[in-house]
Amino acid sequence: MTGTSCDGIDLAYVEFNENSDSFLNVIAFETLNYPAEASQFVSECINEKKHISELSQFGFYLSEIFAESINEFLSARKIPRNEVDFIAVHGQTLWHNPMKENFLNRQISSTYQAVNLSALAKLTGIHVIGDLRSGDIALGGQGAPLVTIFDYDFFQDNSKDRILLNIGGISNLTYLPKENSKENMMAFDCGQGNTLLDLACNKYFGVGYDKDGEIAKSGILNEELLSLLFEDGFIKSTPPKSTGREKYNLAFLENALSKLDYSPKPSDILRTLTEFTAEAISFNIKNFCTEDFEIIISGGGRNNIFLMDLLASILNNSTFVSIEQFGIPSDGKEAIAFAYLGWLYLKGITGNLPSATGAKRSTILGTFAI
Amino acid sequence: MTGTSCDGIDLAYVEFNENSDSFLNVIAFETLNYPAEASQFVSECINEKKHISELSQFGFYLSEIFAESINEFLSARKIPRNEVDFIAVHGQTLWHNPMKENFLNRQISSTYQAVNLSALAKLTGIHVIGDLRSGDIALGGQGAPLVTIFDYDFFQDNSKDRILLNIGGISNLTYLPKENSKENMMAFDCGQGNTLLDLACNKYFGVGYDKDGEIAKSGILNEELLSLLFEDGFIKSTPPKSTGREKYNLAFLENALSKLDYSPKPSDILRTLTEFTAEAISFNIKNFCTEDFEIIISGGGRNNIFLMDLLASILNNSTFVSIEQFGIPSDGKEAIAFAYLGWLYLKGITGNLPSATGAKRSTILGTFAI
Repeated sequence: MTGTSCDGIDLAYVEFNENSDSFLNVIAFETLNYPAEASQFVSECINEKKHISELSQFGFYLSEIFAESINEFLSARKIPRNEVDFIAVHGQTLWHNPMKENFLNRQISSTYQAVNLSALAKLTGIHVIGDLRSGDIALGGQGAPLVTIFDYDFFQDNSKDRILLNIGGISNLTYLPKENSKENMMAFDCGQGNTLLDLACNKYFGVGYDKDGEIAKSGILNEELLSLLFEDGFIKSTPPKSTGREKYNLAFLENALSKLDYSPKPSDILRTLTEFTAEAISFNIKNFCTEDFEIIISGGGRNNIFLMDLLASILNNSTFVSIEQFGIPSDGKEAIAFAYLGWLYLKGITGNLPSATGAKRSTILGTFAI
Repeated sequence: MTGTSCDGIDLAYVEFNENSDSFLNVIAFETLNYPAEASQFVSECINEKKHISELSQFGFYLSEIFAESINEFLSARKIPRNEVDFIAVHGQTLWHNPMKENFLNRQISSTYQAVNLSALAKLTGIHVIGDLRSGDIALGGQGAPLVTIFDYDFFQDNSKDRILLNIGGISNLTYLPKENSKENMMAFDCGQGNTLLDLACNKYFGVGYDKDGEIAKSGILNEELLSLLFEDGFIKSTPPKSTGREKYNLAFLENALSKLDYSPKPSDILRTLTEFTAEAISFNIKNFCTEDFEIIISGGGRNNIFLMDLLASILNNSTFVSIEQFGIPSDGKEAIAFAYLGWLYLKGITGNLPSATGAKRSTILGTFAI
């Protein structure tokens, strides 16, 4: 798994034992280095035009990078490759356009996850399942969220009301009131997660992220900027909905800043962005879910202590628990959920939940490379 | 099948009966319209930069176009879709870069065939096999030619020396001396086929192609331009080799013309390009094959009477036959060969011939969408 923030390559080695008490067994998880050149290229792709030759090369380049990461991961643990049944790979999202738009005189929606699946299979000698979002998009869905079925199959509890909240580049949640049915699941993107925080840290402080949220904590909330950030409307829109870096990027922040007739202090900007993130998440929980739930948190944002404190103070009727208490590494949840989608493909089980994605019907997700 | 010339969508409905006398049975073949907007977009992709959002949309757009063509083709013939085991789709080549080049500090080769396989499968309700070139590229091959195994399996004749020559946008051949073995096959791109002819027709005469070669026939050969066209070196280089529209495009022609200190008459340019095409093909046959063979011709170029006459006069020791004599529509050979590659995928049989592509080993080609 590589997310929109390009901050690492998450590798999870997972065993699914369908007929055992421990259906899911996370054997190993590690985040390997995402090359700076690749991260730079992804960012350029979003902000400027590229020649097709570069995009062609990038897909195969990523297959090489991913194959080396997988080979390194396996050999460090002495896992023979013939014990690995398959690789599930998300691919690097370069674009996600779930709403139909005019393109060459047709109404088209699409998603683009870079990596050549066939090359990855040949370079590792392991079967690959990827492009997991496209099938749902083709059936009119948002192509997201896809972790919902994982959340349902492993966290639905008939005695407890739960929300699974993941704060990655984008923040998303799965709503699991007790005795909910699979056909009636709600899960959606709340809005910005770490993306804007990391971009602002990089721009104003030359660091990759705001460790523990210390920079934000030192700043002062700018109410005017906060309301400008909310103007885009996504956060308050009704689910199902999904978003990505094509919305929450530097241009988004600069657009809001340009409407002020002064330049706020960088630490105030970071403070305001962190409050914006907390508000975006809590608005969605309060308005589209219920407040007094057990909230199971995952994703890199969980390490931002200040953001967590803000969330806990706004959602003061909820209990917060880390997903690690369930044997799942906090940063590994999405990688593990996508491994599960790969497993579902091989079992011929549908992976999308139309109530969450908006697709016309449920379908088997993924493309297979031998 | 859609070729580099974007002149149509070739659909072939084919039956393979492994244990019958007629292994290959071409039930229907038709070329449907390739939308002008799509053709224009492909051309723009090669000549200018595009934003990733457009490439993302284009993949899904093509899935829709192809799905509608397939649905139309099937319903016109009252073929129930559950009788179709699979669709093999080439995808629209936007880039083909078989030689390793520096990219983000690595040596990368790649190929890019646009179409989202998963979307095509969902929109037709039929399994899809595509991205057939990438596996070979990942193993160090040229990703082309891939029709070789089809040529071998259906045309190898222990009593006859044969060459299969296909003149599409690019011209390519398969060399089949009698009693040749599969491990020792030679097949390669000769160079330009119809691409430059069609581009020049469009530019100078506002028509899509030179019907029967009449325009070229009315012009005079310009020897100086001919030798400039040969300067690029590809045509005379030793196989294995492959090429595409990323080389043979308007810029290629304009570069040669710019070295003259005058502008030749348009009909002389077309005459010279046609002679260039004939020379390119015959040079490769004379130098890398043997001359007195049965040459089985396929591809749109076969309808260019003047080009055929030129070839026959240069290769006057060869016999020319049309592939139609073997029950294969001349324009349908590549579509049928790719259907065969799809069938090989499903049978778990390797599809590339390393002696033709240069790959490290033979491998199962293709990516499968459910």
